[in-house]
Amino acid sequence: MNINRRMVLGGISTAAAAAVLPVEISRPAPDGTRVRKIATEEAFVIPEMIGPLRDVLRRGGPNLDLKLLALIYGEVSAAALPSGAMPGANRDAFARTLLPLLLDIDAGRLGDMDANGVDVHLLSLGIPGVQMFERDTAVALATLTNDRLSEAVRRHPTRFCGLAAFAPQDPNAAAKEMERAINSLKLNGFLVNSHTDNAYLDAPRFWPILEAAEALDAPLYIHPRAPSDGMAAPFGDYRLEGSAWGYGVETGTHVMRLIFSGVLDRFPRLRIVIGHMGEALPFWMWRLDFMGAPGSRAGRKNQLKPSEYFQRNFAITTSGVEDPLALRFAIDKLGVDHVMWAIDYPYQATAPAVAFLDAASLSDQERAKISYQNAERIFRIAPSRQ
Amino acid sequence: MNINRRMVLGGISTAAAAAVLPVEISRPAPDGTRVRKIATEEAFVIPEMIGPLRDVLRRGGPNLDLKLLALIYGEVSAAALPSGAMPGANRDAFARTLLPLLLDIDAGRLGDMDANGVDVHLLSLGIPGVQMFERDTAVALATLTNDRLSEAVRRHPTRFCGLAAFAPQDPNAAAKEMERAINSLKLNGFLVNSHTDNAYLDAPRFWPILEAAEALDAPLYIHPRAPSDGMAAPFGDYRLEGSAWGYGVETGTHVMRLIFSGVLDRFPRLRIVIGHMGEALPFWMWRLDFMGAPGSRAGRKNQLKPSEYFQRNFAITTSGVEDPLALRFAIDKLGVDHVMWAIDYPYQATAPAVAFLDAASLSDQERAKISYQNAERIFRIAPSRQ
Repeated sequence: MNINRRMVLGGISTAAAAAVLPVEISRPAPDGTRVRKIATEEAFVIPEMIGPLRDVLRRGGPNLDLKLLALIYGEVSAAALPSGAMPGANRDAFARTLLPLLLDIDAGRLGDMDANGVDVHLLSLGIPGVQMFERDTAVALATLTNDRLSEAVRRHPTRFCGLAAFAPQDPNAAAKEMERAINSLKLNGFLVNSHTDNAYLDAPRFWPILEAAEALDAPLYIHPRAPSDGMAAPFGDYRLEGSAWGYGVETGTHVMRLIFSGVLDRFPRLRIVIGHMGEALPFWMWRLDFMGAPGSRAGRKNQLKPSEYFQRNFAITTSGVEDPLALRFAIDKLGVDHVMWAIDYPYQATAPAVAFLDAASLSDQERAKISYQNAERIFRIAPSRQ
Repeated sequence: MNINRRMVLGGISTAAAAAVLPVEISRPAPDGTRVRKIATEEAFVIPEMIGPLRDVLRRGGPNLDLKLLALIYGEVSAAALPSGAMPGANRDAFARTLLPLLLDIDAGRLGDMDANGVDVHLLSLGIPGVQMFERDTAVALATLTNDRLSEAVRRHPTRFCGLAAFAPQDPNAAAKEMERAINSLKLNGFLVNSHTDNAYLDAPRFWPILEAAEALDAPLYIHPRAPSDGMAAPFGDYRLEGSAWGYGVETGTHVMRLIFSGVLDRFPRLRIVIGHMGEALPFWMWRLDFMGAPGSRAGRKNQLKPSEYFQRNFAITTSGVEDPLALRFAIDKLGVDHVMWAIDYPYQATAPAVAFLDAASLSDQERAKISYQNAERIFRIAPSRQ
C-alpha cells in the first residue's frame, strides 16, 4: 500500500488525490478476482438545486445547516479563498471545492471510481436534499432529482444505482413519489436528511412516508443534517453543528424517537439504514437496552428492546468512520449482515475509504458482505455479471 | 457465578438483590488475594437537599431534569405506587425507591459493598447537585455537602473517599470551596453535573473553576444531567432526556465545547473524568480527529486533535455500561491507563456491575488498573494497607 495516508487523511480533495496517487489495487479475493466494492452513501446534486439553495441562504434564519451550505453553495468564488488555501485539514476551504464534484454524475465521478477500484456508487441527493425548500418547490425538485438520478443510472447501469429523494413537507406527495421511484424508475430506496422543519419522522403527519417505505419494502436511509432548531443552541459555537459532532447527535436522536415512540411497532417491516458506523448507537446499545427496555418509562411505547429493533429494522454503513476498531465493534455488536461499506463521497476522499476497507481485518466472508453482498441484498442491487 | 443475571439486570433494587443473592466473591488475583475494587461514580445526598429540591419541583419550568427529580424527590409516597409495581424494568418505579439508598452513607451502603466485595466508594453528590438552586443556597449547600462528605470519609476512611460539590453559580466562591475541599477536607476531586443555568464550562465566567481545578491538580468529574433548555426540545418526548439517551448527548456536547473552544489549551493540565464508558466519545474518536483537527473550521480554537486531549486531559469510567465489548474498545482506543471501574450506585445495582468487572476478559495488569490502580493514581486515593 503506497498511499501517503497522512496526506490523504488530512482531507486532500479527491481530484488531487487521484492525480497524486497511483491506481489503487484492491485486495484480491482468494480465487484471484477482485472483491466488488459498492459504496452506499455517495452524494450528488443537480444544477437546478443551486438557485433555490442560494434563495435559502439569502433568506437566512437560525438553521445551523446554513453554515455549511454557505461554503458549498454560496456565491463566493474559489478565487476569493485566502491565497494558499488548500483542502487539507481546513474543512472550510475543502467545502468550497465540493460543488463541481457533487454535480458530476458522469465522467469525473467514474474516473475517481476507476482510479480507486470502486465498482458502484449508490447515489443520493446531497445534504439538505429538498428539505429546506417551501413545499411545492420541494415536491417539484424531488421529482426532477429522481428523473435525473434515473437517467444517470440508465447511462451507467453497472456503475450507479440510487436512493430517491422525496419532500417530507408534503407526505402524501412524498408517498406517491416513493412509489414512482421504486416501481417506475427502479431506484433502490430513499434518503431523508433527518428532520424536516424541525420535526421527526415519528410525527403522525409523516406516517404516510413510513407506510410507503414499508409497503414498497425499500430501505429508508436517514442521513444527518445539523440539529433541529429546538436543540441547536449549544451547537451554535465552534461549528459543533456539523460532521464533527452535531450530525451524529441529530441522527441518533432521530433514531431514538423512532424506537421509543413505537412507530417501529406500527411499521414493523420498515427497513432503515444509518451511516457513520451507526452514529455511535452500537456503542450505546447495552445502555439503551438496560435503560430502554419495554415498559421502562411512562411515555415510551416501544414493544421491543432497542437492540431488537436494530436486528429487525436497521443496517448501518461505515461512511466517514474509517476506524478498523469501530468497524470490528460494529460487526461484533450488530452482526456482519448489518454493516455496509460507504465512502461519503465527495465529502470524504475515495482513496483512504478504499484503503480502510482493504486493510480491515476481516474474514473473506465478512469482507464480501461488507464490500457488496449486504448492499446487494438490502438495496436490491443487481449482482455483478462477472 | 450463581447470580440470577436476568433478574439483576432488570433493575432490581440493591437492597433486594443483597437479600436474594449470595455474597459475591470477586475473582482472585494470581497470588490468591482479592483485587481491590474502587467504585468511582457513586452517588449520595444529604437530607438538607430534599427541601430545596422540592422547592425546585414546585417552581417547575422547562428544565427536563424535573422529570426524574419528581420521581426521586417528589412527595409521592411509596404507598402511592401502582399495586404490584416492582423495581424491575420499570425505571420510574425504581426511581421512587432510591432516596433511602442515596441518603445512606453508613451501614446500609457498607452492607451493600460488603455483600458484593466492593472495597471503596468514591462518593459524589447525586444529580443535579446544587446546580438548580439559587446562588446563595447553592453555595451554602455545597459547603454543607462537603462537610458531611468529609465526616463520612473520616468515619470510614478505608471505605469512602469523595468528590467535592461546588456551586458554578458563583465561580469565585466555587474556587474557594474547591481549595478548601482539597487542602482542608482532603477530598479527591470535584464533580459537576454538566451545564449550570444552561451554560457550559467553556464560558469565561466559569474559568475560575477550571483554574482552581488545574492549580489544585485534582480531577473534575463531569457527570450528566438532562440536556440544557436550548437543546431540550427533541428530548422532551419518550423520556429521551435521561439515562437512555439525553445524558450522554448533553455530556458529550459539554466535552466537545471544552475541546473546540480551546479552554484545554488555556488550562492544559486540567484533568477531567467522564462516565458511561466515555459517553461514546471513544467510538467517535476517529471522526472527531478527522473532522476536528486543529484549523479544521473557522471558529474553532483547539490546538490539538481531540484524541490528543483525551490522552492528556481525560479519563473515563465504566459507570452504567456493563458491556465487555465496549470496555475492550475503550481500552484499545484510549489505553488502559484511562479507564476506571464504576457502579453508578444506587442508580445501577452493585452485583451486576461487579459481575461485569469480574467476567471481563482482562489481563491481570489491566484488571488491576481498571479495578483500583488508575483510581488510586487519578484521584490520589491511598493504597490499601493489605
